[in-house]
Amino acid sequence: MDSDYFGYKGRVAEILRKKNVSVGDRIVIKKKEKVFEGVLMPREKLYGDKPIIVIKLNNGYNIGVRVDEYTEIFIKQKRSTITPSLKPRVRTQNLDLPKVTLLSTGGTIVSKVDYETGAVRPALSVEELIEFIPEISDIAVLDAREILNVFSEDITPRDWEKIAREIYEEMLEGVDGIVVAHGTDMMAYTAAAMAFAIRNKPVPIVFVGAQRSSDRPSSDSAFNLLSAFLTASRAPFAESVVVMHGETGDTYALAHRGVKVRKMHTSRRDAFQTINDKPLAVIDPYEKKIKIVNKIIEERNKQKEPVLENKFDEKVALIKAYPGFQIDIIHYLVDKKYHGIVIEGSGLGHITNRVVDAIKRAVEEEIPVVMTSQCLFGRVDMYVYSTGRRLIEAGVIPGNDMLPETAYVKLSWILGSKTRNLDEVRALMTTNTAGEMNPRLTIDLYPRWPHI
Amino acid sequence: MDSDYFGYKGRVAEILRKKNVSVGDRIVIKKKEKVFEGVLMPREKLYGDKPIIVIKLNNGYNIGVRVDEYTEIFIKQKRSTITPSLKPRVRTQNLDLPKVTLLSTGGTIVSKVDYETGAVRPALSVEELIEFIPEISDIAVLDAREILNVFSEDITPRDWEKIAREIYEEMLEGVDGIVVAHGTDMMAYTAAAMAFAIRNKPVPIVFVGAQRSSDRPSSDSAFNLLSAFLTASRAPFAESVVVMHGETGDTYALAHRGVKVRKMHTSRRDAFQTINDKPLAVIDPYEKKIKIVNKIIEERNKQKEPVLENKFDEKVALIKAYPGFQIDIIHYLVDKKYHGIVIEGSGLGHITNRVVDAIKRAVEEEIPVVMTSQCLFGRVDMYVYSTGRRLIEAGVIPGNDMLPETAYVKLSWILGSKTRNLDEVRALMTTNTAGEMNPRLTIDLYPRWPHI
Repeated sequence: MDSDYFGYKGRVAEILRKKNVSVGDRIVIKKKEKVFEGVLMPREKLYGDKPIIVIKLNNGYNIGVRVDEYTEIFIKQKRSTITPSLKPRVRTQNLDLPKVTLLSTGGTIVSKVDYETGAVRPALSVEELIEFIPEISDIAVLDAREILNVFSEDITPRDWEKIAREIYEEMLEGVDGIVVAHGTDMMAYTAAAMAFAIRNKPVPIVFVGAQRSSDRPSSDSAFNLLSAFLTASRAPFAESVVVMHGETGDTYALAHRGVKVRKMHTSRRDAFQTINDKPLAVIDPYEKKIKIVNKIIEERNKQKEPVLENKFDEKVALIKAYPGFQIDIIHYLVDKKYHGIVIEGSGLGHITNRVVDAIKRAVEEEIPVVMTSQCLFGRVDMYVYSTGRRLIEAGVIPGNDMLPETAYVKLSWILGSKTRNLDEVRALMTTNTAGEMNPRLTIDLYPRWPHI
Repeated sequence: MDSDYFGYKGRVAEILRKKNVSVGDRIVIKKKEKVFEGVLMPREKLYGDKPIIVIKLNNGYNIGVRVDEYTEIFIKQKRSTITPSLKPRVRTQNLDLPKVTLLSTGGTIVSKVDYETGAVRPALSVEELIEFIPEISDIAVLDAREILNVFSEDITPRDWEKIAREIYEEMLEGVDGIVVAHGTDMMAYTAAAMAFAIRNKPVPIVFVGAQRSSDRPSSDSAFNLLSAFLTASRAPFAESVVVMHGETGDTYALAHRGVKVRKMHTSRRDAFQTINDKPLAVIDPYEKKIKIVNKIIEERNKQKEPVLENKFDEKVALIKAYPGFQIDIIHYLVDKKYHGIVIEGSGLGHITNRVVDAIKRAVEEEIPVVMTSQCLFGRVDMYVYSTGRRLIEAGVIPGNDMLPETAYVKLSWILGSKTRNLDEVRALMTTNTAGEMNPRLTIDLYPRWPHI
């Protein structure tokens, strides 16, 4: 990155540097009879070698203009400096509508291109966000503030504690719903954490993100945000959910229970999917309709007094079983006084018999060991095969049909907020708290795969 | 398990113990005017408390008979002792048919109930297996032997080396196809390992297993084995594939490329699914038809000389990113001189920025670090966000659209069979070897989820 210029290399970098054109500047490119006007974009990925300049046209699309000896470049307007507004609260008008607070934690939904590295970074202020989707003010009275500004991959259980406290305080203030803007990478973990950390919820907690940043024409920010505000303000349930695109088009969104949702695709808009259960609701943000398609566990009721139990134990490990898995890793976790271990085992809940003694050692030292399955779909059943029985005898706690990620969050929560007594941990881990286990896995819950 | 009797508890256990009835004995239960005859089954799971005796009827189904004060029990026939035949080779007759060798490694497809623990264990000999599905002799001349007898969760890279050598030797002997019976838990890993360990394959390697053991009426053993033999004997490709049920019914099987397949359900017959690609073929074992539905990478050609490259490095770790992931685990792997690390990152290929320095340290010590995504679907793209770029700068090798499991197997193979030079590892990891990367992820490759 040192010798290049906003990702541009070679001759193009030289031309841009000489003209002192910066990314974000509005420029005109003349190429014989053709004229292109737009904002200079940084050069992405590994393609910087080609003699092409990328500009964003007024219609929002990017194009690449090939540079040859006839090409001339002029700056039409230097970019305006973006000064992120950090003014804490912005209030909109129509006071008869439900009150919804947007808590922003960072992530793509509030991202812009970072003009220094050419990559996407959280930047857009909450204020700009509301300007970005004026329809929100038809749905709710908005209160908005930034409580964190981190990439979701950097979020820790300490951050979950903070987010839970902020949500809890909003509930005490009597809001009708909370929207949490969150980076998508680790959003499902945080949504699961809130399902446990706030009990007896009076109103919904709606997590929302975007798979494409808000500066791009293909961004899903606006659609998702609108759907999230609708859900927060009107849904009849009071659960921690993720609201994101239901399919690639802007047709409907889905509200997924936080404890059952997983990011299943690196880039698609409909990356979030409920596993081993149905989504809770289908959202049509245009018609302002919410169709409930699963059993509600916690009903919306503003009379309810929320209970905050927001301590999460950071000394919990989530490890995966694979052929050649080395027993030393479990011993290491025990030596290092980890407080809990979740295994993403194989099939019905297995890991090699070679580690049974190490697991016994963990359990003897009062470290709960929970078994889940890397299959993701289906239920752990450790009584079918000898390996499972041996693990049960060693003291492993079966994770039922919980996602490995949810089991990890739940164990961290139990150890932090509830108890470290092994028997009590076992009892809590195997008890359904917020819909994290589905007692009835019907055949239709398995997706249809693209076979032929 | 101490006080119970084959899983039975309380009064029922007492009655069975007094009568000296063992699991596997043929018994008669008289209950007033009704008479039931069948083989005593062990009591499964947690239901042993109820006063019910489970017997397998002649039609293959199990029933539970409630025991009351009028119930009488007689032994009709003590169970015959099962003596597993370990005679190494069994040959069938029609010598004009293609020659297929069945290599058995253990697992459910060759399982029976373990009458000591009441659980399912590998037991049925290869000989019995062939008796079990006589139709196989219409498809191929069979050669069969047991090369391992382990649960698939206990299989190690050392076992992959042995399996590869056995397959290779069969290829040198000129067979037309190889079927490997394998426990389903870790079957996908082994199938991927064979894709790498034997290059220039003349004939297909077909992995097959069963989700229900062969002693049960609902077993998928026969259907899967028949499909596997058909594929091994006649498929036009010479790749390492998994052949299993395509849907829950006995309608068709699918041949999945080993490097792209994953066990996606703990118990369904159609648990195996291709991710980020289409299956290679649809198999109709009744009509003896194989329909190719994806591009073949290696064609069947018995003139090809196979190349064995079967060393796998056992000092490779597969670790998962999660909120609160502790940096010390990476330092531990470096301290312990691991030779390679595969990260199952989030989203487009991220892990918390807090571990970047630890990763730099690994790379400086010539330990390759490969990034994949826990989303499973989609492709890693580490140039979109700052975190990804920082990881790339730290030396992380992007895993493209490879499954985390396949990336793990491939890295273990490269380090064992090819090179430990970091630049060479990088070049090999990012080069398609056996279809483990799909350059074109089309929109139809994402499954359809059960929304409404």
